[in-house]
Amino acid sequence: MLNLDALLREIVDPRTKGFPLGAAPIPLSAVGAQGWNLLRGDLSFPVALLRESALDHNHAWMRDFTAATGALLAPHGKTTMAPQIFAEQLAAGAWGITVANVQQLGVCVHFGIRRVIMANQLLGDREIAEVIRLSQLHPDLEFHFLVDSLPQLALIEAEAGKHTLTRPLRALLEIGVAGGRTGCRNYEHALTVARAVAASTTTALSGIECYEGLQLTGDSERDIAFVGALMETVRRTALACDHEGLFAGPSIILSAGGSAAFDIVARKLPTRLSMPVLTILRSGCYVTHDSGFYARMLEGVKARSGMDWQVRPGLKPALEVWARVQSRPEPGLAILTMGKRDASFDIDLPIPLTRFRIGLDDYPRPVPPGWKVAAMNDQHAYLHLDADADASEELAVGDLVGCGISHPCTTFDKWRVLFTVDDGYTVTGAVRTFF
Amino acid sequence: MLNLDALLREIVDPRTKGFPLGAAPIPLSAVGAQGWNLLRGDLSFPVALLRESALDHNHAWMRDFTAATGALLAPHGKTTMAPQIFAEQLAAGAWGITVANVQQLGVCVHFGIRRVIMANQLLGDREIAEVIRLSQLHPDLEFHFLVDSLPQLALIEAEAGKHTLTRPLRALLEIGVAGGRTGCRNYEHALTVARAVAASTTTALSGIECYEGLQLTGDSERDIAFVGALMETVRRTALACDHEGLFAGPSIILSAGGSAAFDIVARKLPTRLSMPVLTILRSGCYVTHDSGFYARMLEGVKARSGMDWQVRPGLKPALEVWARVQSRPEPGLAILTMGKRDASFDIDLPIPLTRFRIGLDDYPRPVPPGWKVAAMNDQHAYLHLDADADASEELAVGDLVGCGISHPCTTFDKWRVLFTVDDGYTVTGAVRTFF
Repeated sequence: MLNLDALLREIVDPRTKGFPLGAAPIPLSAVGAQGWNLLRGDLSFPVALLRESALDHNHAWMRDFTAATGALLAPHGKTTMAPQIFAEQLAAGAWGITVANVQQLGVCVHFGIRRVIMANQLLGDREIAEVIRLSQLHPDLEFHFLVDSLPQLALIEAEAGKHTLTRPLRALLEIGVAGGRTGCRNYEHALTVARAVAASTTTALSGIECYEGLQLTGDSERDIAFVGALMETVRRTALACDHEGLFAGPSIILSAGGSAAFDIVARKLPTRLSMPVLTILRSGCYVTHDSGFYARMLEGVKARSGMDWQVRPGLKPALEVWARVQSRPEPGLAILTMGKRDASFDIDLPIPLTRFRIGLDDYPRPVPPGWKVAAMNDQHAYLHLDADADASEELAVGDLVGCGISHPCTTFDKWRVLFTVDDGYTVTGAVRTFF
Repeated sequence: MLNLDALLREIVDPRTKGFPLGAAPIPLSAVGAQGWNLLRGDLSFPVALLRESALDHNHAWMRDFTAATGALLAPHGKTTMAPQIFAEQLAAGAWGITVANVQQLGVCVHFGIRRVIMANQLLGDREIAEVIRLSQLHPDLEFHFLVDSLPQLALIEAEAGKHTLTRPLRALLEIGVAGGRTGCRNYEHALTVARAVAASTTTALSGIECYEGLQLTGDSERDIAFVGALMETVRRTALACDHEGLFAGPSIILSAGGSAAFDIVARKLPTRLSMPVLTILRSGCYVTHDSGFYARMLEGVKARSGMDWQVRPGLKPALEVWARVQSRPEPGLAILTMGKRDASFDIDLPIPLTRFRIGLDDYPRPVPPGWKVAAMNDQHAYLHLDADADASEELAVGDLVGCGISHPCTTFDKWRVLFTVDDGYTVTGAVRTFF
């Protein structure tokens, strides 16, 4: 579906972090044919891996989940910024891709994506001009951005007025939360902005958007109440806009949904209006899932979604960062060759999952439950062991430790290339990111 | 000095974060000729800038500082991982470059650097083999790595034994600190490792290394006492190794020094031994300096270094990340188009320095002292203003805000290309990073 040919011809070499040291430069497309295997010691460290079986599982899980709810999916592309993963998401049925800014939109359009939601305010002459250029160049491009204030709309009208538009720009009215991030803080302001968009000569109102993810607590009762109330505000605003004829049509987008409570959104957001409604979720992290924050939040999603989703295996963590033990300087302490440059540390530190000694072990063994990454420097992690356990004594300089991460977004942006692996940790390909 | 020709021919385009949207793909070498200017709105946001005048000043400052102390400088390249900056550092008199791992060594060697210290343990068959390959390929390559345990040395000997070495590998004995990171924790262990290295058929002892940066407090009295004691341990160990004839020679490296207390190292570390001693500092962050952690620590460096260094202008912050105000959703709050993907947040959040309205202001104006980035999400920053001050009322959607950062390393790794600018914010070039 997407045109990845030129991307796959790009040459990668050991100057890129994670690429096997000493290996010859090769096109991205040739990585899978090298037969590299983590457990045979073919890779260098640290290295970021994507488990293909988990990715496949997660694509199918989310396809089925959204199909069951009737919602569409425009996964947030900012998580991976990897067109190869975007292609998989679209092949699995995603309606489009969500982005965070116009650079990310440009990456999507470059590779052939033609339905994009920018879950952020459009502004800046350069950014607005680029959106207009892309829209004129690609008549089949459907692009929606957020608007939450009259000054923002004025900036758009000023820049757009300098261009000849063949069709209006399409804006989603953003509903916000008091004390939150962007978005209109009350009903009256929201309607004022909606009316101004509808009256604009350059911009049409294509729907309503909000983001519930920042106020979630993990306490299902509170989360249901909060998200339910926010969706009710969206519905009420949508009904008012529809009643006033502010939507340009031919359909109306209602969009919300991060990766932590998309189930509540999918149940509460759908609304009957005078035109067909597209209910669009924007979860991004589901695709790799994680071993921390989203793993915890998924328990709530499953518990709230009925027996079918409780018995079915949930999303699986696909992203692992592997490092070597470079020193065992004190009992109970191992220093790993990975750090803040290599793995997320903004919600939790990396979670040690497995250990492996090349030439001795057959397959990675789970680490004892007490092992914990207690700190990271730029290039080092401090792995705290159970000081008196035998398994900890055995962890030697040179051993490999595989870590899960918490919050995939802030790991992806640290790697220009991540390797996909099968369940035997043979490298099947390489995924290039665009940050 | 370095061969940057191929690097400068690399094509950059708007798919790379920070590159002007809609601009045609051009070679890196052509960026400076475009005449782009931040204040005319030619760039897109967020964007990372390096102020050339500050870089030049910092190169000269550090050249003079090390010259005054007699120490050599092998700046830590992990900070920027930018060969173009390495070239400037070497041109300013740096002895070599420090790296954190073999991938970073490979980048240095690729571009022609021939003196490299890896301030980390060498281990891993793939890594060891690559060091040997590079050493054989480049007889003029002088490469030193750290060793802090017998198991590590055994791994090196096992792998190196499979190769025919034309010259021994060169190891620095690492002295550590109880409760710290890597490094031998006591004198006896250090001497045991040193003797084993000296007795090795593959590895020679080229000096002693330690890193004082992690235990610093910013309290000069405590820092002087701590660093002084650590340097005394290095000296004592060096004297013992020298007495036993463990150093291979022809010179002996003694190395320490991050970017926060390199002055204490430079005063305390030099030691007279039986062969010429190279006292090598490894500060990396001085080159861009910062507006947070290192700005605070530099006060101690200056205060400790006498009147000459107190009256002379200190290091200057060269690194700025600029973003637009995308929303003013509540009084006292501005949401900026930058986040955890764009700027360091591990020691401090970004520090708002200046504001600018394109078309109205002539030059960026300092922001009121009360303004503060209170939080960041992946792609957003929450700028808290003085809710009742006029200057805050005036900050409008679309305005630019320039932020200083704290800890340059974790900003550099978020950008594949940073732009150098003159004092009028005209783009003079682009710096490519290798993470």
